[in-house]
Amino acid sequence: MTDSVLGLAKALINRRSVTPDDAGCQTLMADRLAPLDFNIESMVFDDTTNLWARRGTDGPVFCFAGHTDVVPSGPEQDWQTPPFEATEIDGYLHGRGAADMKGSLAAMLVATERFVAKHPDHKGSIAFLITSDEEGPFINGTTRVIDTLEARQEKITWCVVGEPSSTARVGDVVKNGRRGSLTGALTVKGIQGHVAYPHLARNPVHQASAALAELAQTHWDDGNIFFPPTSFQISNIHAGTGAGNVIPGQLDVLFNFRFSAEVTDQALIKRVYEVLDRHALEYDIDWTFNGQPFLTDHGKLLDATQRAIEEVTGHCTELSTAGGTSDGRFIAPTGAEVIELGPVNATIHKVNEQVKIDDLEQLALMYERIMEHLLC
Amino acid sequence: MTDSVLGLAKALINRRSVTPDDAGCQTLMADRLAPLDFNIESMVFDDTTNLWARRGTDGPVFCFAGHTDVVPSGPEQDWQTPPFEATEIDGYLHGRGAADMKGSLAAMLVATERFVAKHPDHKGSIAFLITSDEEGPFINGTTRVIDTLEARQEKITWCVVGEPSSTARVGDVVKNGRRGSLTGALTVKGIQGHVAYPHLARNPVHQASAALAELAQTHWDDGNIFFPPTSFQISNIHAGTGAGNVIPGQLDVLFNFRFSAEVTDQALIKRVYEVLDRHALEYDIDWTFNGQPFLTDHGKLLDATQRAIEEVTGHCTELSTAGGTSDGRFIAPTGAEVIELGPVNATIHKVNEQVKIDDLEQLALMYERIMEHLLC
Repeated sequence: MTDSVLGLAKALINRRSVTPDDAGCQTLMADRLAPLDFNIESMVFDDTTNLWARRGTDGPVFCFAGHTDVVPSGPEQDWQTPPFEATEIDGYLHGRGAADMKGSLAAMLVATERFVAKHPDHKGSIAFLITSDEEGPFINGTTRVIDTLEARQEKITWCVVGEPSSTARVGDVVKNGRRGSLTGALTVKGIQGHVAYPHLARNPVHQASAALAELAQTHWDDGNIFFPPTSFQISNIHAGTGAGNVIPGQLDVLFNFRFSAEVTDQALIKRVYEVLDRHALEYDIDWTFNGQPFLTDHGKLLDATQRAIEEVTGHCTELSTAGGTSDGRFIAPTGAEVIELGPVNATIHKVNEQVKIDDLEQLALMYERIMEHLLC
Repeated sequence: MTDSVLGLAKALINRRSVTPDDAGCQTLMADRLAPLDFNIESMVFDDTTNLWARRGTDGPVFCFAGHTDVVPSGPEQDWQTPPFEATEIDGYLHGRGAADMKGSLAAMLVATERFVAKHPDHKGSIAFLITSDEEGPFINGTTRVIDTLEARQEKITWCVVGEPSSTARVGDVVKNGRRGSLTGALTVKGIQGHVAYPHLARNPVHQASAALAELAQTHWDDGNIFFPPTSFQISNIHAGTGAGNVIPGQLDVLFNFRFSAEVTDQALIKRVYEVLDRHALEYDIDWTFNGQPFLTDHGKLLDATQRAIEEVTGHCTELSTAGGTSDGRFIAPTGAEVIELGPVNATIHKVNEQVKIDDLEQLALMYERIMEHLLC
């Protein structure tokens, strides 16, 4: 039985779609969307399967975005139930992807079926942008679908990403933006030698420590009403081979910025170089840019979402830009309004991932109400 | 033929005496010393074999100190000749221990044979203090022999350690002291977390970097005429598990002091604690004390050695306290004058370790002249 949100969520969880394997999930979804007059495009890039489905040709375009891939389960014997066999226990649905984000996909699809049944002649278009590499290297997924759409000047007006945004109860938090993320792999060069002969060596740990202290203490910005201040964190630092009498020849440091919309990646890079140069280090940095910050601080989508949540739950919702990155960062730069709304994220990426079954139904109601506010 | 220095050096090299295995080297030496009326004591402590041999019962006591153990050869196929088969090539003797320090042992023993033959009624006593763990943990070697001698109030007046002190030609450098060595294994505690949620974590790399910068920049002392200034070096620093999005929960730092006679280990420890406490770190340090500094800045032994080298080579010698530690640090605290004189150290602890055969003969002459200056 896949007519209910629960039924479809189960059918999706039962497919072992570990990144980048879609394992047929998108076909399952496309087979439900096609009878609703969605135009189905499967966009396969290398190892990644993407689905772009659209009902209607006019704007505005309301789009559900999400991913069918899941993170690995880890040792299956650590789970209470088999991770790829959806199991109901005491009102909760257990299985890898239950909360991140096959539950959301099921809610989106069933909400769309119900909405189209009630409003077959709605305004604009409804679309689905689904990828199988959100948990992976995000090279051949959403970013390439967006490139394809941009090339043919096809625009998304409003986008709801199904990431599990909620913390205590479904809908209590909506993500209306995300910080940018920038990673630097710093290598500081020294000259290796014996600790007994320091004048013949140059210790890169000694040379770099004052610079690292300065980077750690730097105030990068104040953030703004939606963003916390930009944060710099060293995640890894390594030098030395274990021997206690050898001055290391190289220091390796991996660091990451989570940055607000008050700065740009280029501004941060420039300031890091300034600090390192002032300390006269011999160094290289490999930069990995993981995405600009984005923010949807007002607009019809945000209004519709807040109203929908209040109508379904009776509660107000909190806006947040905290947490990691999402594929919203690839969609927002096209000019789309983007928000993220999904189930409680307490168990995502963990063993015994689960979602409250009632929450999936509530989520489908919220999604349906958002469409009604925007497309009716 | 083991009558020559070369012959005895070869016989010693051919024994695979990797620390702490003496492999019969000391028996070979004892069998040569006994006919010269040396009293032979083999002192075995756990895995370590030591030899204390003494000719005469009166003071002053002139002592040769050294070790029969060698460091491992590494892959034997990397060597030009088998490391445990002494081989002559173009005037050089090749093999593990040729320079560090089986060549010295052979020179000491042959010098003693020649000296005793010429001066059977010399003043005072001649002694040999030989261990098989100088290259190892130095727990059951020289330090325990010294403890035994101290317990029976047997004193060494003058001690020549056969460590390879020379740099370009034999006798160009004599070590008349060594710096102290103190190692600290520092652990700085933090709170692990996700880089996207820094307010829930405490980054030990950030907390420690200013303290490490201060330690690296600290001026510990000026040294003195014989010692370079005390040196602090970080040899290893590690934090992080490789993941780029995790704030590490702990930072591990290994550091070492090589310190002059102007400070003590306790003074250095106190100053390190002061720096770390001022930076409000949560930390532990495991200290390993590797030896106090020692210095023989004047006296009959130093005079005799400098004269002997000049008589044999026609050159002056340079005094130095540079370099690593030696077992001299265990002998000097008893009040003995200690110097180190041995062959050129260019190839020690490396593949194709070698010593110039002529240098071994010159070294034997120097050793013999030193005894003549002191005991005739």
